[in-house]
Amino acid sequence: MIRSLAYALLMLGAMFVHAAPIQDDGAPDPGDVKMIKAIFDHVLVQGESYQMLDHLCNKIGPRLSGSEGAARAVEWAQQVMHDAGFDRVTLQEVMVPHWERGGKEVATILGDGGEDPLTVLAIGGSVGTDPDGLTAEVVEVQSLDEVAELGEDRIGGKIVFYNRAFDQRNINTGASYGGAVDQRVGGPSQAAKYGAVGVVIRSVSSSFDDAPHTGTLRYKEGVPRIPAAALGVQSALRLTAALEKNPSLKLYLNMSCRWLPDVKSYNVVGELSGSDHPDEIILVGGHLDSWDVAQGAHDDGAGSVQSIGVLRTLQALNYKPKHTIRAVLFMNEENGTRGGQKYAKLAGENKEKHIIAIETDSGGFVPRGFSVTAPESTLAKMRSWLPYFDKNTISYISKGGGGADIRPLNAMYGVPTVGLRTDSQRYFDIHHSRRDVFSAVDRRELELGTGSLTALIYLIDRNGL
Amino acid sequence: MIRSLAYALLMLGAMFVHAAPIQDDGAPDPGDVKMIKAIFDHVLVQGESYQMLDHLCNKIGPRLSGSEGAARAVEWAQQVMHDAGFDRVTLQEVMVPHWERGGKEVATILGDGGEDPLTVLAIGGSVGTDPDGLTAEVVEVQSLDEVAELGEDRIGGKIVFYNRAFDQRNINTGASYGGAVDQRVGGPSQAAKYGAVGVVIRSVSSSFDDAPHTGTLRYKEGVPRIPAAALGVQSALRLTAALEKNPSLKLYLNMSCRWLPDVKSYNVVGELSGSDHPDEIILVGGHLDSWDVAQGAHDDGAGSVQSIGVLRTLQALNYKPKHTIRAVLFMNEENGTRGGQKYAKLAGENKEKHIIAIETDSGGFVPRGFSVTAPESTLAKMRSWLPYFDKNTISYISKGGGGADIRPLNAMYGVPTVGLRTDSQRYFDIHHSRRDVFSAVDRRELELGTGSLTALIYLIDRNGL
Repeated sequence: MIRSLAYALLMLGAMFVHAAPIQDDGAPDPGDVKMIKAIFDHVLVQGESYQMLDHLCNKIGPRLSGSEGAARAVEWAQQVMHDAGFDRVTLQEVMVPHWERGGKEVATILGDGGEDPLTVLAIGGSVGTDPDGLTAEVVEVQSLDEVAELGEDRIGGKIVFYNRAFDQRNINTGASYGGAVDQRVGGPSQAAKYGAVGVVIRSVSSSFDDAPHTGTLRYKEGVPRIPAAALGVQSALRLTAALEKNPSLKLYLNMSCRWLPDVKSYNVVGELSGSDHPDEIILVGGHLDSWDVAQGAHDDGAGSVQSIGVLRTLQALNYKPKHTIRAVLFMNEENGTRGGQKYAKLAGENKEKHIIAIETDSGGFVPRGFSVTAPESTLAKMRSWLPYFDKNTISYISKGGGGADIRPLNAMYGVPTVGLRTDSQRYFDIHHSRRDVFSAVDRRELELGTGSLTALIYLIDRNGL
Repeated sequence: MIRSLAYALLMLGAMFVHAAPIQDDGAPDPGDVKMIKAIFDHVLVQGESYQMLDHLCNKIGPRLSGSEGAARAVEWAQQVMHDAGFDRVTLQEVMVPHWERGGKEVATILGDGGEDPLTVLAIGGSVGTDPDGLTAEVVEVQSLDEVAELGEDRIGGKIVFYNRAFDQRNINTGASYGGAVDQRVGGPSQAAKYGAVGVVIRSVSSSFDDAPHTGTLRYKEGVPRIPAAALGVQSALRLTAALEKNPSLKLYLNMSCRWLPDVKSYNVVGELSGSDHPDEIILVGGHLDSWDVAQGAHDDGAGSVQSIGVLRTLQALNYKPKHTIRAVLFMNEENGTRGGQKYAKLAGENKEKHIIAIETDSGGFVPRGFSVTAPESTLAKMRSWLPYFDKNTISYISKGGGGADIRPLNAMYGVPTVGLRTDSQRYFDIHHSRRDVFSAVDRRELELGTGSLTALIYLIDRNGL
């Protein structure tokens, strides 16, 4: 009675919500409806993702590749998977880059009106300044192209200040991030190519506060490596205002960040073996490493604990998967993606067959959809499952998605990839800044992500692709 | 070019996202597509809702009916509407109840192991205790029915402790609130009916912290009015554990809250006059009053500023509505709904024609859908508009919705009503507690609510219902 009532209610809701195509074989299967309700009930009441995240953030903390925190996180994740009784738990060795921030960075406007200290973080991977720091005039630009247009005459000997703002108009803030992040990633070498001695950028953030946001840069071969830092948005606005008054002001920059030799680290892999197709793998993963300035709660502690949480949920519901369900906690997504590359390389060597790979690295916010890189038939099949999801969780399947860690699996072997899409409004207020802490994560939002991933994996396991 | 590209992109997105029925008259109108993009661009870049909310929360603060804060909020809202140059700004006089919390409440377990002070708030509308407080044994129950089953023998002379938990399983947390709130609203009189001398409840909240959540109660005629208070969830758990050890422990309760004579207050009404149908009104509203324990940021400062924000957005885009668009900031939703009742009464007396009334009172979280009480044909028409909305804003039109302030318009005159549905995961962590403050509201989430409301109203104004 409860069963049929729940089914009737779900169908009623589904009719109102999704006019998505149901497959030719008819209405959603009542058994699947029941299982998916059990999945969401479980995560919302007894889910462990939030407690795991509490431990990862508050007991371990920052986990930049090569750091002690990253090493402790690997140990912890392996232990959690062992304690959970996963059928197989392995570590995949991977050599990772090791960059350290060093002491607190300094950026100060030296103007007519005295000194104005700005909030600043070295961009990840930057070289430091001389111990005495660096002082130079500042050229403000809006783009890498503008640096080329200004040329060596205007850029040489200067600090280039990339000040193009985050476009607030995109509802998907990831698009705005993508539209501004070239300043951070490619800006330093572009400036160096024209003789600049340093780079500062406006933080790539939707926020209007003054917390600087770090992230990685990519130095080009054959171009001098110059120091590069990110200013808080308010600091960037102060700098641009100061430059308007006094274009020949100088900026003082001091950063002691540095590169150390590569360090041995690991991807952490745990799985539940498939009963019918043990050699066919459904992968769900996030990345265990984080930036060094906070707890990496949303990025990507959330995805790490959700990936373990998927397997824990299937265990709790006593579900025996037909395919092997594998949780992978990748190392070094933030500044190298060595873990993802190594994983794909090993998958090839071991002739592993992945039927799909799913990444959760959009922050632990409420789920809104899945983005999918797969043949049209797979997309159609996944769309036919939309009625299984409550309208306040997954409401779309969009084309083209995955994640940095699973991209090599697609590129090398054509494995279909999926990204969990969460609500993105708050993400780039927090991302790569000191604000990415446990208290910025909502328990229910996080657990609904675990539930959505578990439900999708259940549907794939049951129905194939 | 940009226009057609934007249109093509929107259509592409829409096809993937919504298989919602497009009307017979064909694909979405390119002009409407352009206008709706302009609406969202405007609110995300230049929207004023967030700044208005900052003022309302941080300069005015709590606004319980009858309080000085409520009076100042009325003045402020009227001034804002005047300054905005709305075509008509009026105050609708309404007499509202005036209840005051008084000094800080005290609830203390008097057990064998000494005293344990609990976090507590008087339930809004409760009578106080004697100045010396109230001490009695405690009977823990799960429901109003259980009180009746236990009867006068077990209940008489005791404090009834309603401890039924918020059901974490509902993805729509509003359903869980609805499933537990009878303890707060009807619990006190039910207990008094069987001779209880006081009531405490577990706060109706999704949170596991110890912030108590207030809200209103409803005393029944002919039953003694007894003091009633809400405990923080952790405090409720401590009380239940203490009772398990010592069922005859006593609870000490001291509250100095009290009723004062009704106070003259106002609904604040501002409108843009319609060009073609000035006598046909599209209403958008929220409530200006709030509980007294915080800033009423989500409940319902958000809806108040969004309602003004809709008209401001139409003005900014130089849109001249065909129908009259009216923003109504209702008074006294929280403990009486006198403002909503008065509004409907006056609408009848003045023979006003409302073609639809929309309420925003679900917190300033990211929008997810609209719930609609209207004929099926209206629902179908509104569903046909889903492709106009980005998949990360409005993704459904569900049946049955509105709001407490506009319900009388529907009940008395059959006016169709709509509620903006926002993501509900965090709402009941915050609702009616000290946590409902400006810093708990995200700028983009709030402004997307304003944008969604403006877009819907634009579509109704342009296309009719």
